[in-house]
Amino acid sequence: MSILIVGSTALDTIKTPTAENPRLLGGSASHASVAASFFSPVSLVGVVGEDFPKKYLQLYRRHQIDLAGLQILPGKTFHWAGEYEANMNRRRTLATELGVFETFTPTLPPAWRNLPYVLLANIAPALQHHVLNQIKKPKFVVADTMDLWLNVALPDLLKLLKRVDGFVLNDSESAQLTQTDNVFAALKKIHKMGPAYVIIKQGSHGSILSGPAGIFICPAYPLATVKDPTGAGDSFVGGLMGYLAQAKGSIDRNIRRAMIHGSVTASFCCEGFGVTRTTKTSRADIQKRVNVLEKLTRF
Amino acid sequence: MSILIVGSTALDTIKTPTAENPRLLGGSASHASVAASFFSPVSLVGVVGEDFPKKYLQLYRRHQIDLAGLQILPGKTFHWAGEYEANMNRRRTLATELGVFETFTPTLPPAWRNLPYVLLANIAPALQHHVLNQIKKPKFVVADTMDLWLNVALPDLLKLLKRVDGFVLNDSESAQLTQTDNVFAALKKIHKMGPAYVIIKQGSHGSILSGPAGIFICPAYPLATVKDPTGAGDSFVGGLMGYLAQAKGSIDRNIRRAMIHGSVTASFCCEGFGVTRTTKTSRADIQKRVNVLEKLTRF
Repeated sequence: MSILIVGSTALDTIKTPTAENPRLLGGSASHASVAASFFSPVSLVGVVGEDFPKKYLQLYRRHQIDLAGLQILPGKTFHWAGEYEANMNRRRTLATELGVFETFTPTLPPAWRNLPYVLLANIAPALQHHVLNQIKKPKFVVADTMDLWLNVALPDLLKLLKRVDGFVLNDSESAQLTQTDNVFAALKKIHKMGPAYVIIKQGSHGSILSGPAGIFICPAYPLATVKDPTGAGDSFVGGLMGYLAQAKGSIDRNIRRAMIHGSVTASFCCEGFGVTRTTKTSRADIQKRVNVLEKLTRF
Repeated sequence: MSILIVGSTALDTIKTPTAENPRLLGGSASHASVAASFFSPVSLVGVVGEDFPKKYLQLYRRHQIDLAGLQILPGKTFHWAGEYEANMNRRRTLATELGVFETFTPTLPPAWRNLPYVLLANIAPALQHHVLNQIKKPKFVVADTMDLWLNVALPDLLKLLKRVDGFVLNDSESAQLTQTDNVFAALKKIHKMGPAYVIIKQGSHGSILSGPAGIFICPAYPLATVKDPTGAGDSFVGGLMGYLAQAKGSIDRNIRRAMIHGSVTASFCCEGFGVTRTTKTSRADIQKRVNVLEKLTRF
């Protein structure tokens, strides 16, 4: 089953205490698509400018990512620059240049309107709505978001939550949205906003799912060094949705293992700048870490 | 197997945004002993003043805690007063009155010198050394600590780490001790200081063990409301050691389930002020939550 992914496609300049990397392939849809590609074919909806390096188009293609929905428009690709502190938990944005993203209107190739698995990766809620309006009868739709949209587009986001099956956000966004620091109290509040499946990401502490089959506590894969956490959350949800799209049986039967596979894919993302480490990963590498994680949590 | 526990025995005044509770039974040894008592008999080493309420002595006895090592001295019981912020993650100390604790010299009843399981609960490292000097051939010694001792008694603590099998500390203490925020990097550094078993507690995120049999990621039991987290860490390590003391087989065979039982016992602690909720718990209640935790983590 091919999975539809819409989100941002960007060039990222990422500074850490030890290195600076300009114009890396970035954006929520890039990270999510590369992650999902280890499990199922991906149909990518996004926009880039004429300055977008050909090598990144080749990278997408190497990952069997269908680019029929990727618009290449006159102008500059969305560019984000950010800097991490030593502990990698705090980052600040140095620059945001929207470029061709400013007028982006995602349009689906007609054949994609019947795709059953849809990931609305982090992007303005209005655009997530716009994509959802073009989909006919999806089986499972998941939306991701970021703090920016809670601040500037909350009504749109709240409307979106009534239209999706699953919603993924991190712990600080969840605290902002629900006005509670307790994730289990927050999960209950978010269910009331619409989604049957809610996942709160907790960075190096893993993630928590609340769904029709109850709670699942999903660990993060242990990493003694993190090079660049940018895109880890996108890789997590991309891997999760990619795994679900190829799995046989119900969502409830597969979603826990899907989260584990997403978690492991995200661990590779953290070990390199941008998608550099993720693209060197294989399905077999992922399986090895899934097996390790199984041993690390058994009691 | 009876377990030896030394630590503080105190009266706690605890303020939260919704309530204030004066003169609760508190202290690391009180919490750890009550927690351990669900699994094995406890031999408590501590000191209280003449003002120590009789009802708390009765509480200890109801939990089959042997008080032959509890000194009752002229003067006042150690008193701690603290206040929690709304999210329960930050607290500040309002008052610390050492009382009889100031001159405490823990002395073991002769029959206790052969006890195989020893928990050096949070207390000055010099006193932890003093107790360890009186023990003959312990099978498994675990020490807990707090940030205060990292600040004012680090050399004593570092010497202690060379004498114990296990060391338990929380994530902020671990970051302070090792100068790294990454728990997996920190675990490696702490092993080099001595202990074969290191456990980093992460509050509501659970805890991580590193030992001869590798890493174990131990979840916290999900709680939608936390009334008072005071003593949760002490309850965790008390439950852990109590479980180990009664389990058949090697430490490595049992320590993961011991942590799970400690984690669940700590969850009860958080649901009431002081030990009020823990003392209402039963071994069967604990088992129920262990079974739930098993389901919440399986994939």
